[in-house]
Amino acid sequence: MIQGTFYIISAPSGAGKSLLLQRLLKEQLLRDIKLSISYTTRSIRPNETDGKDYFFVSKHTFKNMIAEDAFLEYAKVFGNYYGTSRESVKEILSSGIDVFLDIDWQGAKQIRTQFLLTCSIFVLPPSIQELARRLNRRAQDTEQVITQRMKQAIIEITHYSEYDYLIINDDLESALTDLKTIIYAQRLRVHNQKVRHNTLISKLLVV
Amino acid sequence: MIQGTFYIISAPSGAGKSLLLQRLLKEQLLRDIKLSISYTTRSIRPNETDGKDYFFVSKHTFKNMIAEDAFLEYAKVFGNYYGTSRESVKEILSSGIDVFLDIDWQGAKQIRTQFLLTCSIFVLPPSIQELARRLNRRAQDTEQVITQRMKQAIIEITHYSEYDYLIINDDLESALTDLKTIIYAQRLRVHNQKVRHNTLISKLLVV
Repeated sequence: MIQGTFYIISAPSGAGKSLLLQRLLKEQLLRDIKLSISYTTRSIRPNETDGKDYFFVSKHTFKNMIAEDAFLEYAKVFGNYYGTSRESVKEILSSGIDVFLDIDWQGAKQIRTQFLLTCSIFVLPPSIQELARRLNRRAQDTEQVITQRMKQAIIEITHYSEYDYLIINDDLESALTDLKTIIYAQRLRVHNQKVRHNTLISKLLVV
Repeated sequence: MIQGTFYIISAPSGAGKSLLLQRLLKEQLLRDIKLSISYTTRSIRPNETDGKDYFFVSKHTFKNMIAEDAFLEYAKVFGNYYGTSRESVKEILSSGIDVFLDIDWQGAKQIRTQFLLTCSIFVLPPSIQELARRLNRRAQDTEQVITQRMKQAIIEITHYSEYDYLIINDDLESALTDLKTIIYAQRLRVHNQKVRHNTLISKLLVV
């Protein structure tokens, strides 16, 4: 049985990662990719759907899940918990579907210690000006909030070299091509091809 | 300065590797790829060119080169020596050009111990029937020669899983697409992108 590939994707806020993932999931030829849905204890927002954007659970449930070692990784951000369910990722992978996990460098680090065959991708904006522009565009935030967000982005960027691949998101279409190239190449990796062409290989070897 | 990538490609005889490489080298978008030319002590054949097919040298010269540690790898096959020059590979790589080395599993093994960042690719025929057909087609060989060649092919195949990537050469066009996908993905590897986008990354990090 083919195992899906476990992709980890990280980026500083403002690099355009979410739009890139949205586009990837719409690709007709890549139906066998799913985005991992995290568990969270924060309140659901009006435009969100439970089970699509997040699994919204109570703090009590989340803490029970921690106690049961149900998370591949979890973190507490501004008083709310966020976590990736071990069971749901394994279930998707074992049905031969690739999982994309959209996560920060700390989560990525936790995942890499548990899964040997992850494929991790970092996305960067094309320039510091563009990064600042994208972070400013977001809302009517105070300068302080924007500066804080910029600092956070830079911290994330310092970890880019811990990843397998680096995509510069200058133009969305070409970043999407890059991402698809990485996925197609990953499928040609010997450990994936070995399972896919198992019958052929055994026939070639018993001659 | 960007370093080229050191590609190693192996296949059993009859997998169609040579044709695949010929086609790759004709690709307009991949001008920055060269095939490594081996040194050999065997006699030049009428259709061959010195410095294009091989560098043809005397046994004396070859042995001197061995003594000077001039080879990344070398082997003696049917009384003739074949070897890959350390200097010429390094020269191509340091000018930012990718090198393809067409070599058997033993040579590949020798190379991997010396270069950490190689990318190795194995090519398989689509079926045992097709392999036999391709080996038979070659010439007016005796059955004994064909059987011997088939045995050699199977030995080579047993080493496929030592490679990073596996291509099944069923259809030449799709095998070429696979090969190009691997090359493009390799260029997105973080250690390659790091050098290519050095200026951008340093600007993002000093903010």
